This record gives sequence, structure tokens and C-alpha cells, in this order.
Amino acid sequence: MYIIMAYDVNEKRVAKVLKIARKYLTWIQNSLLEGEITESKFERLKAELSKIIDESEDSVVFYKFGSEKLFQKEFMGEKLGPKLFM
Amino acid sequence: MYIIMAYDVNEKRVAKVLKIARKYLTWIQNSLLEGEITESKFERLKAELSKIIDESEDSVVFYKFGSEKLFQKEFMGEKLGPKLFM
Repeated sequence: MYIIMAYDVNEKRVAKVLKIARKYLTWIQNSLLEGEITESKFERLKAELSKIIDESEDSVVFYKFGSEKLFQKEFMGEKLGPKLFM
Repeated sequence: MYIIMAYDVNEKRVAKVLKIARKYLTWIQNSLLEGEITESKFERLKAELSKIIDESEDSVVFYKFGSEKLFQKEFMGEKLGPKLFM
């Protein structure tokens, strides 16, 4: 399964959410990651995130596909992708 | 065509980018919109954005699909979606 993960969380929790997400997915730009993932790892990712986020304030959305071939990607401006960050 | 748009732009340009994007797509959470769009409107969206963003600093990524049926969506936490914002 291929997923795109986008999140909109309180500043206090961004670093923790990112640290967890990067164990499973590739960082694309701020608040956005994607990657191939198994069903069981996806469940683990969600379980770890649920211990961190405040469900009443934070929002995480997953777009799930059978494969990466089902979409095309187009960039404008700088193509960020994996790079050093805070 | 269905697209997901995610952006990572300088704070100074966020409001302008969002204002343009919301003419064409539905706001899902900060820096993330999606929606059905024609090829010609997609070209217009990109043309308008290219006048605003700083290509050396800002990043916009579009995921393009034949239809919304090609993916499933899953939320954690608050389901934001269209709401009043700055």
C-alpha cells in the first residue's frame, strides 16, 4: 500500500509527530510525507501517533493507494524531499 | 482529474497562495487542498501561483489522479475541512 500523510498539529507536537512519521515514510515537505508501507506498519504508525496527538486539536490525514503508479506528481518551486531539518 | 495540493511556502506568501488555491480546490487542513479540476483550470491555477511563489524558496506539490475513487482517505484527530480561517 502507498500512502501520503499530511498533518496539521500544534507546534508543540510537530517534532514528535515528524520523528515518528519519518520512521515509516519519506519526508517531502513540511507536514507532508509519503511512501510504501505494509498494513501492519501502517497500524503501528497510527498507534504511535495516537499516543502523541491531541485528537481535539490536531489533524492527520492519510491518502491510501494500491500503488504509487496510480498518481502523477508535479512540483512547483523548490523540490524539497529528504533533507536535514530541525 | 482529481488533485491533492500541498504547499510549503514562506509565511509572507501563505495567505496569497491559499487565496488562489481556494478558488479552485477545497481546503482540507493547513497547507493542504484537494478537488476535482479540469486540465485548463489546473493550468490557470499553476499560472497564478507562479506569479506569487518564490521558486527558489517555496515548494508546491500536486498529486494528480484520474479520479477520487483511486484512493481512500483516513483521518486521525480533528477532521478540519472547510472552515473559517485567517
